[in-house]
Amino acid sequence: MLTEELLKDALQYGKAFTKLGMTAQYIPQLRDVNKYYLGVCTMDLDGNVLEAGDTRIPFTIQSISKLVSLILAIRDCGADHLFHEKVGVEPTGDPFNSIVKLETKTRPFNPFINAGAITVASCIKGKDADEKFERFLEFTRKLCNNEEISLNQAVYESERETGDRNRALAYYLKASGILEGDVEECLDFYFRMCSVNVTAHDIAYMSLVLANHGVDPLDQEELIEPQYAKAIRALMLTCGMYDGSGEFAMTVGFPAKSGVGGGIAVPLVDRMGIGVFGPALDEKGNSAGGIKILEYLSNKMGISLF
Amino acid sequence: MLTEELLKDALQYGKAFTKLGMTAQYIPQLRDVNKYYLGVCTMDLDGNVLEAGDTRIPFTIQSISKLVSLILAIRDCGADHLFHEKVGVEPTGDPFNSIVKLETKTRPFNPFINAGAITVASCIKGKDADEKFERFLEFTRKLCNNEEISLNQAVYESERETGDRNRALAYYLKASGILEGDVEECLDFYFRMCSVNVTAHDIAYMSLVLANHGVDPLDQEELIEPQYAKAIRALMLTCGMYDGSGEFAMTVGFPAKSGVGGGIAVPLVDRMGIGVFGPALDEKGNSAGGIKILEYLSNKMGISLF
Amino acid sequence: MLTEELLKDALQYGKAFTKLGMTAQYIPQLRDVNKYYLGVCTMDLDGNVLEAGDTRIPFTIQSISKLVSLILAIRDCGADHLFHEKVGVEPTGDPFNSIVKLETKTRPFNPFINAGAITVASCIKGKDADEKFERFLEFTRKLCNNEEISLNQAVYESERETGDRNRALAYYLKASGILEGDVEECLDFYFRMCSVNVTAHDIAYMSLVLANHGVDPLDQEELIEPQYAKAIRALMLTCGMYDGSGEFAMTVGFPAKSGVGGGIAVPLVDRMGIGVFGPALDEKGNSAGGIKILEYLSNKMGISLF
Amino acid sequence: MLTEELLKDALQYGKAFTKLGMTAQYIPQLRDVNKYYLGVCTMDLDGNVLEAGDTRIPFTIQSISKLVSLILAIRDCGADHLFHEKVGVEPTGDPFNSIVKLETKTRPFNPFINAGAITVASCIKGKDADEKFERFLEFTRKLCNNEEISLNQAVYESERETGDRNRALAYYLKASGILEGDVEECLDFYFRMCSVNVTAHDIAYMSLVLANHGVDPLDQEELIEPQYAKAIRALMLTCGMYDGSGEFAMTVGFPAKSGVGGGIAVPLVDRMGIGVFGPALDEKGNSAGGIKILEYLSNKMGISLF
Repeated sequence: MLTEELLKDALQYGKAFTKLGMTAQYIPQLRDVNKYYLGVCTMDLDGNVLEAGDTRIPFTIQSISKLVSLILAIRDCGADHLFHEKVGVEPTGDPFNSIVKLETKTRPFNPFINAGAITVASCIKGKDADEKFERFLEFTRKLCNNEEISLNQAVYESERETGDRNRALAYYLKASGILEGDVEECLDFYFRMCSVNVTAHDIAYMSLVLANHGVDPLDQEELIEPQYAKAIRALMLTCGMYDGSGEFAMTVGFPAKSGVGGGIAVPLVDRMGIGVFGPALDEKGNSAGGIKILEYLSNKMGISLF
Repeated sequence: MLTEELLKDALQYGKAFTKLGMTAQYIPQLRDVNKYYLGVCTMDLDGNVLEAGDTRIPFTIQSISKLVSLILAIRDCGADHLFHEKVGVEPTGDPFNSIVKLETKTRPFNPFINAGAITVASCIKGKDADEKFERFLEFTRKLCNNEEISLNQAVYESERETGDRNRALAYYLKASGILEGDVEECLDFYFRMCSVNVTAHDIAYMSLVLANHGVDPLDQEELIEPQYAKAIRALMLTCGMYDGSGEFAMTVGFPAKSGVGGGIAVPLVDRMGIGVFGPALDEKGNSAGGIKILEYLSNKMGISLF
Repeated sequence: MLTEELLKDALQYGKAFTKLGMTAQYIPQLRDVNKYYLGVCTMDLDGNVLEAGDTRIPFTIQSISKLVSLILAIRDCGADHLFHEKVGVEPTGDPFNSIVKLETKTRPFNPFINAGAITVASCIKGKDADEKFERFLEFTRKLCNNEEISLNQAVYESERETGDRNRALAYYLKASGILEGDVEECLDFYFRMCSVNVTAHDIAYMSLVLANHGVDPLDQEELIEPQYAKAIRALMLTCGMYDGSGEFAMTVGFPAKSGVGGGIAVPLVDRMGIGVFGPALDEKGNSAGGIKILEYLSNKMGISLF
Repeated sequence: MLTEELLKDALQYGKAFTKLGMTAQYIPQLRDVNKYYLGVCTMDLDGNVLEAGDTRIPFTIQSISKLVSLILAIRDCGADHLFHEKVGVEPTGDPFNSIVKLETKTRPFNPFINAGAITVASCIKGKDADEKFERFLEFTRKLCNNEEISLNQAVYESERETGDRNRALAYYLKASGILEGDVEECLDFYFRMCSVNVTAHDIAYMSLVLANHGVDPLDQEELIEPQYAKAIRALMLTCGMYDGSGEFAMTVGFPAKSGVGGGIAVPLVDRMGIGVFGPALDEKGNSAGGIKILEYLSNKMGISLF
């Protein structure tokens, strides 16, 4: 059903929308990326891999790291603790970096807004930022089936320098008793985890694991329990595309998690993982061309969940 | 796969949770309903109907009417106009009757919060509340395949008397230029549309139409275009269970729309429609026992979308 | 110390600022007023009256009526009930017509924002809007020592037609249990009380009564107890100039209450009452030229409270 | 008019209210203070000093330091820059440590809420926290006419350890471009300036300087220009008692600035400075007994501004 032909058509369709978007502007390393990059990679459970466009260009994982850290935190301290004590599971109409709701709600709304992701990051085990990050990096490599994945040092340094809004969120969470442990260690880890370089190919494999109920299709290792893989796919659908999640559900209908580096991870359960890369973002912060590729595939293949 | 046995087990499972909920307390007609009522009805595309429990007890449709009015408004003035000019399609973390966001956003977040539903109601054609309601009632009867459906006059009168928060929303929307036409006519229609008596059996049929791409399975009449039926199912998943939608997606994984009368409508695309009735509500305003029935069916049958 | 010369200089100084302001734009009757009108009238306790500029041009009292209704409500139901049960006495940084705070606070912040003023209006005795307004009008005539004061019917009708934001506030207050009685009667009275025609001369006398501890200087009748006259002067200082009250306290330093009709009432305790009229408003909704007249007088006469 | 007798009566009156309040609970050094301490000191322009109760017990200056830093910042970078670029001058109905408004407003509402005070602190010259604090301490000694004034090291350390909410505000302000310079240096200075030990006697002198148009009555040095002393007295009236400022204006009617250490500074222009100390706080964070002393004096001496 899914052919290389179709994937190329989808890429072609998406290309028209890259010029309407803009790269993330808050740090030079993201701003100066070629905004016309666009690529899509699919991997199915039978080992078939299809690629079109810029699928081997590295980009920073950014908010897609929130998927990895969420899985790791569930492994480290249990879903019950995490979802009952630390973060909610409800979408919010506010932008990803909003602080307003923290004054009226005790917990961040969900693990994919920054306040929630910082909280989740604080739950990952490790005696300091170095150890936390080492564990994160190792797990990301496993999830992406790529031992070469590494930190983009320049992006990390820029994130750390410009991360005052995230610092404000973290200290607020600390003051509210939500975030435990050392705030600066937590933030340092958070900035690093957002700054790991991946490719669309990597993201496709990570999505495939989630589509395969949390089981690595190569060695059959269960990286996360099936029930939590399912829960995460549901969360991706309701909250994964920032405050554009509702529209994405209507027009595309996939679980997805985007990052301002231009990536989108899409797990289609029992079917395939999709990784997209396109650094030109729409006004919600999602890959403009990437969304259009996914919309094209959803419509042509009739594979919306709805 | 779905047997009468399984449905009875689901009902039995759900029963244990009715005592933990409470009927809606704001009007006597809802408050005084027997909170132990519980029923579930399923209808599939082959005409198989299964029922367990209180599926023929009438209850007021309440917010499930927002589905009907949304379909009618799309038919009356087009989805483009509705979703681009009048209401958004994003979930919000705020309660259903919140007014706060209206001061910072131009349009209500989505058609299922009260502010959005009142706006949608204002888009339905009709020279006055009587004509609007007549059209609504006729369309509800068609969607539910039940010519006997009628207004619960006592509930309507109570809703009208206690509806000051909704009046506040409506006048605010009028002042912002979102709501057009006469506010009191719009509200009068809104209170009536919420006060129509239906049964779980009715709701199952309505859900079946949505599951069947908007086509009435008996006479094959297209009541709404397939693309909009799909869009509405997506909206139900992200926004249909108030600020409990995220958790419902994780634990049950169906598109659903609930009402404080105790009903839940569930369209499972290409599969079946489910109607649930259980007036004991959880703290989010959703049927406590009803959710548990759906969770049971989702798990036993493995039919979560995720 | 205060001479006709000085008053003319102040008027001259203020004139330069009228062109920078705009008349209120939301109804034609206010919009189309000559924005270059400017006048100031002072009355002292010895009966000296000074006037400069347009002191006999009628304009609608608008929010200055909130002073009159507050006095009347204190007389009708007592300051204790009013300030403990119905409205607060704290300034708020929000605009006069904001609804946001109502969702988090039980009572409106103070009697001079619209939500508070509508609540105060609901506490005035009278079997219907007619009777309430008759009592209000009679009391306004007494406070202004002018039997000719009457309703501006055209403004009233426009206010009523465009008053949906106020309607939203009123229904919200009703739903919260703050506003008692019939909402539409209350609003009808509220719109009428805002639409009474007065002059700067009238406003000066009203201010003189407040400056004279609530006692009418002509017949020595106590129109409000001295302690409440004092409380109201304090409230005028902290809340009387909308969200420009803080700056007005710093630059002018008088208790004052403004209205979008262009009036400002200023009671200088034991000294005089000042009435100003200048329909060109600044961006906070206060008379642009009027504020400058008062600033001039405050500086030249050294009579700031601070 | 003001006699030692009257001051003792005022103290006696205030004593009854200390048991209704509570010391600040967030750090042990404040929590464990004897909550029955109460003292009041007045100094007039003729050099008369009256004292009653615990006027020589040291307590931390806390938010009263915001007066000192505001004066210093005006001296360092000018009132125009400060009030036009950095902070507003309007009261807000929100609590002193609220972060909500920062998301909708560019600048903090006024210099006395924490967000505003941190911003003001960032405008004080000094190459690091040490130098800033040295200048602050020297200036405080001058304002209080007491060379012995020094840092309470234990309070400072506790403030620094528990100051995460203030850290969140500071990083938010940094991210918004309001706060310039190093955030941690600014916060370190802020925590120190709040932790200086003073007495009611010291606070009375500081208030006397403000009452004397900014001029030190002993050596006639102008510590701040008269126009800014006046502006600060006005700000104290509208914003000085947190979200209890409106009620304090009505019941007492003085410019005042309180701190959670239990102090209140009151400048009565051309008349006297008053310093109060009473660590039992009301629910707004103001000295419960201290307010009652001031209310008593205001009523008995008839010296409310209103």
